[in-house]
Amino acid sequence: MRILKVSEAVSIKRSVDAGTEEQRQTVKAIIEDVRKNGDTALFSYTEKFDRATLTSMQVSEEEIREAYEETGAEYVAIIKEAAENIRSFHEKQVRNSWLTTEANGTILGQKVTPLDSVGVYVPGGTAAYPSSVLMNVMPAKVAGVERIVMVSPPGANGKLPAAVVVAAQEAGVKEIFKVGGAQAVAALAYGTEAIQPVDKIVGPGNIYVALAKREVFGDVDIDMIAGPSEIAVLADDTARASEVAADLLSQAEHDERACCVLVTTSQELAEQVSEEVVRQLETLPRKAIAEQSIADYGAIYVADTLEEAIATINTLAPEHLEVMTANPMELLGQIKHAGAIFIGRYSSEPVGDYFAGPNHVLPTNGTARFSSPLNVDDFQKKSSIISYSEKALQQNVEKIAAFARLEGLEAHARAVESRFK
Amino acid sequence: MRILKVSEAVSIKRSVDAGTEEQRQTVKAIIEDVRKNGDTALFSYTEKFDRATLTSMQVSEEEIREAYEETGAEYVAIIKEAAENIRSFHEKQVRNSWLTTEANGTILGQKVTPLDSVGVYVPGGTAAYPSSVLMNVMPAKVAGVERIVMVSPPGANGKLPAAVVVAAQEAGVKEIFKVGGAQAVAALAYGTEAIQPVDKIVGPGNIYVALAKREVFGDVDIDMIAGPSEIAVLADDTARASEVAADLLSQAEHDERACCVLVTTSQELAEQVSEEVVRQLETLPRKAIAEQSIADYGAIYVADTLEEAIATINTLAPEHLEVMTANPMELLGQIKHAGAIFIGRYSSEPVGDYFAGPNHVLPTNGTARFSSPLNVDDFQKKSSIISYSEKALQQNVEKIAAFARLEGLEAHARAVESRFK
Repeated sequence: MRILKVSEAVSIKRSVDAGTEEQRQTVKAIIEDVRKNGDTALFSYTEKFDRATLTSMQVSEEEIREAYEETGAEYVAIIKEAAENIRSFHEKQVRNSWLTTEANGTILGQKVTPLDSVGVYVPGGTAAYPSSVLMNVMPAKVAGVERIVMVSPPGANGKLPAAVVVAAQEAGVKEIFKVGGAQAVAALAYGTEAIQPVDKIVGPGNIYVALAKREVFGDVDIDMIAGPSEIAVLADDTARASEVAADLLSQAEHDERACCVLVTTSQELAEQVSEEVVRQLETLPRKAIAEQSIADYGAIYVADTLEEAIATINTLAPEHLEVMTANPMELLGQIKHAGAIFIGRYSSEPVGDYFAGPNHVLPTNGTARFSSPLNVDDFQKKSSIISYSEKALQQNVEKIAAFARLEGLEAHARAVESRFK
Repeated sequence: MRILKVSEAVSIKRSVDAGTEEQRQTVKAIIEDVRKNGDTALFSYTEKFDRATLTSMQVSEEEIREAYEETGAEYVAIIKEAAENIRSFHEKQVRNSWLTTEANGTILGQKVTPLDSVGVYVPGGTAAYPSSVLMNVMPAKVAGVERIVMVSPPGANGKLPAAVVVAAQEAGVKEIFKVGGAQAVAALAYGTEAIQPVDKIVGPGNIYVALAKREVFGDVDIDMIAGPSEIAVLADDTARASEVAADLLSQAEHDERACCVLVTTSQELAEQVSEEVVRQLETLPRKAIAEQSIADYGAIYVADTLEEAIATINTLAPEHLEVMTANPMELLGQIKHAGAIFIGRYSSEPVGDYFAGPNHVLPTNGTARFSSPLNVDDFQKKSSIISYSEKALQQNVEKIAAFARLEGLEAHARAVESRFK
């Protein structure tokens, strides 16, 4: 890996695929078709794109039973435990409605309400991750969303991966449909005979799914469009090179465009990690992907001081940040921008990817400057509550009317005054 | 106003101006120009679009002093009191970071951090509302955002409206720049010599501002693009027609495309309100606007039961909802979708527009189904905290590695295992 000075640090920002005009037109046409022809269009696209001929889209009780069998007791138990950890962490995020009262009769507050319905998109093929099902569904479930619908493209055998079905069931999804692509997004947004529409669509997908989500946004809500993944490790000379290298590679194996960065105060560690990465790469099954990612987007930055290193981290605003220093917890207050912060050598990133409980859907591409991990707030919304008594309005009516007239809005002034006529 | 059955109720959704291809190209060119030529471009566009020749963009101490004088003590006092109410309400929304600990050494939590910097766009001309300045700036201030920058196009005299400057000062803005349009958005997103870039841009604007916000989104965060405003009144036979009509008109005077709806269980009230609206319209200064809005988007729906009326409200998901029934507070639990809920006859909408404290930036166009009023959460972001001890990882390393291998991600498995080699 390249070893550079922190002064040479470059942004982790990579261009996001915005799709071609042709892809946009294709997506628009598919959405129109689904709005017009409903299930017929869905079956036809599933046949065309997924090579699967279905008679029913909804995953049956029978298929769910089979999925549990195929996954096997050992894996089912692990999925259950991960689901429980994720549920437990997200339950701590739930907000309650609140009110304040004043002696003059004023009541103000926020009413917190779950969304009515949410659709979760789960990619097909090799990108079908049960962990992703848990992470996208569980915050909605914990928020109190009554109807959670999952869609995912079937394989040519007309089925979804068994572990994905098990994860959906454990997360509490009651409706699973075997349909993917822009057609699935259209069905979630506008409804068909089989699929009732939802209020929000979340979950990752390919460029067609991303374009379809952008297209239906406004009619329904969507989550952020995720970019390629990244990790930054902040380490001093107490970190072990083999562990740092292993963690960098765990990110690199995701995607050729994943970005892995080490920021360290130790020149020696920098050199050791650089060698370790090469050594460990050799035996990785996904070597080609990881190697490309390291070559294109990997870097080791050496800083003179820990303060300088932390400043670099805050500039990068990485999706994942591992802190492997002598006293990692005491640096927490200085870290401003990171999606998830992994503290100490035993908090290797996969701990959070699968198991600990915090969400693995995180802001990528430097957006941790202003965005948050997927969380319960994303599935609840607030309504303001305003209740003025006669006395409260009497005390303030002149001021409110004056403010309205200052802005030239006479009907506003007359509305409050009408109560005392 | 039209009186219809609730079964005839239509969506309040109106088309949102997406801009023409020509407008999009204009906006792109302006953004490019500002990125390349900085302040020079800003001065030149201000001369072209606002007919103002400036030598300095930043509002000076002297101008602020003059703005206070021009606004006058009475209005300054009202702005101060409104600002204080808004501050007080938003302070109750502030979230703290939190941690949970387990006996095996596991620490999990959420770190809550304010954004570093925020830009607030304030429209010029007749749409320059000091209340809007307070409502957009105060949540950011309360969230702890260190740097809040306001931009607004100057009049031909090279100045901003006095009350807008006063509101900005009272809300705690330290940098006010006299620049508007797509050029101001570009400056906030990418920076110029005079204006340092920000992480998020909020505030309403014309179609060029909206298009520019969409264009820079991703590089910075933006708030929702607001549609035309709306009010729904839910009333039974205890409501007074003159008050209902006055409140409907206070919304109608905003915009020809504003939407005013009454849903009532009383045919008599329906008829009285219909007449009152016509009567009150006569003497309104903004009669032409209000009349158009009522004609195009106004409606009175009569329901057989209160349940039916509430169901209609939930389908509409209005920005503002007034509840004027015998026992309004007890209906709160049945109301699922509304941006702000005004309870009882003394909670006329302008109470919330100007003064009570809750935000007047609300989800429009039916998006209250999934969106919230502007609030402190919009200016804070969360980072997950994950700290596993040696013992915690030891207890779970096999499960985590197994889950990773189930997903075919060997480097993930090796990363956690590396700690025990």
